[in-house]
Amino acid sequence: MRNIKLIIEFDGSNFCGWQRQPKGRTVQKVIETAIFKATGEEIMINGSSRTDAGVHAREMVANFLTNSSIPGDKFREAINTRLPEDVSIIKSEEVSEDFHARYSSKGKTYSYTIVNRYERLSLGHQYLYHYKYKLDINEMRRACEYFIGRHDFRAFMSPGSSIKTTTRTIQDLYIEQNGNEIKIFITADGFLYNMVRIIVGTLIKIGNGKLEAENIKDIIEEGNRKKAGMCVPPNGLILEKVFY
Amino acid sequence: MRNIKLIIEFDGSNFCGWQRQPKGRTVQKVIETAIFKATGEEIMINGSSRTDAGVHAREMVANFLTNSSIPGDKFREAINTRLPEDVSIIKSEEVSEDFHARYSSKGKTYSYTIVNRYERLSLGHQYLYHYKYKLDINEMRRACEYFIGRHDFRAFMSPGSSIKTTTRTIQDLYIEQNGNEIKIFITADGFLYNMVRIIVGTLIKIGNGKLEAENIKDIIEEGNRKKAGMCVPPNGLILEKVFY
Repeated sequence: MRNIKLIIEFDGSNFCGWQRQPKGRTVQKVIETAIFKATGEEIMINGSSRTDAGVHAREMVANFLTNSSIPGDKFREAINTRLPEDVSIIKSEEVSEDFHARYSSKGKTYSYTIVNRYERLSLGHQYLYHYKYKLDINEMRRACEYFIGRHDFRAFMSPGSSIKTTTRTIQDLYIEQNGNEIKIFITADGFLYNMVRIIVGTLIKIGNGKLEAENIKDIIEEGNRKKAGMCVPPNGLILEKVFY
Repeated sequence: MRNIKLIIEFDGSNFCGWQRQPKGRTVQKVIETAIFKATGEEIMINGSSRTDAGVHAREMVANFLTNSSIPGDKFREAINTRLPEDVSIIKSEEVSEDFHARYSSKGKTYSYTIVNRYERLSLGHQYLYHYKYKLDINEMRRACEYFIGRHDFRAFMSPGSSIKTTTRTIQDLYIEQNGNEIKIFITADGFLYNMVRIIVGTLIKIGNGKLEAENIKDIIEEGNRKKAGMCVPPNGLILEKVFY
């Protein structure tokens, strides 16, 4: 069988996340249905990440095995013409049979966008988290440094997943500011459940003065979820890129 | 009666436009309903523009007359708490009784955003117009100059509105480029029906080589709608600001 790799963009607003489930519209199911319509094959696709409901992706990666004769690069159009507007195949190609979107992944970059203004927000609300109290970006930037590196991030994880270790390496964490828009980029070799959203919630706790940048070191060492910040809503989160 | 001015932001994706109509969810009706809940008054609000379905606003202006005792600046919260997520009052204030959001307006700025890339687009599709063929931005920028000034813009108007004159003054028209995102800003003392969307469609016809910048002069003089470009979809359009 041939192994096809897909790069997928989607707007997660109207999805119950990536992973196929008995009820509810999911990205995985919508793509599998489109592939069935294109090839007649009932295949299962492997996604690089199981994004939650409301989370978006600029470059999610998936792969699937097929007996179809459609050339690798032609799957893009064949699937796209059968997809709803909120999911798009950006690229398709045939890859070696040992490629697995999830297990072959070496790391990922996510972004999270906050709009920091007093006034309520409607324009772009599916993609932005509105935070009304003034945030100190310089303190937040200083705090980023404490996250970078190989650490046990169990304080920044929601329960609900079975994993062997809570140690991960954050390669990069930085903030871009454009007017009242604050965009946080984070790259790691892997992420614990809700890890990005809890790190962002913790950065907000630093930005509003409830924590100091230096506290991050202690929270990581202590591993106490309660001392970290809240898990911010999914809509500000975008899976930007997956590395192999 | 007191006259209250509102500045309104809305995501037009799930609205049948601004203006109240017998059927369909409109921004005007949603705000009037919220005001009724806040004051008990069945009022009618005047909007600065009658935006079409799918068009968004960063700073739409409206006004209404009220006997309520709510202070001018407190209407914002009083209305916001009764509004759905896709409409927000950004500011409310009491103004002199001769202020009318539509008739007092001296001009408006709209923006229209195109994503110019071959790949299909899903992320942000409610706010962006996807155009897949390569656009020559320099030619489009050169064409902008021919639109600026006081002209008869009947070639850039859809039928369906009753107006006295088709002459308008475009004060400013320019393009910002950021990667594959092309953002067109246009400011005029007033706009004909679909004028912004037809001007954008005409700029696209220049960008893809079907027209030359110099042709704009002739199209304006001739006033022939058929020689101008298509009316691009509403979703890329944002009412940015109204001037008084």
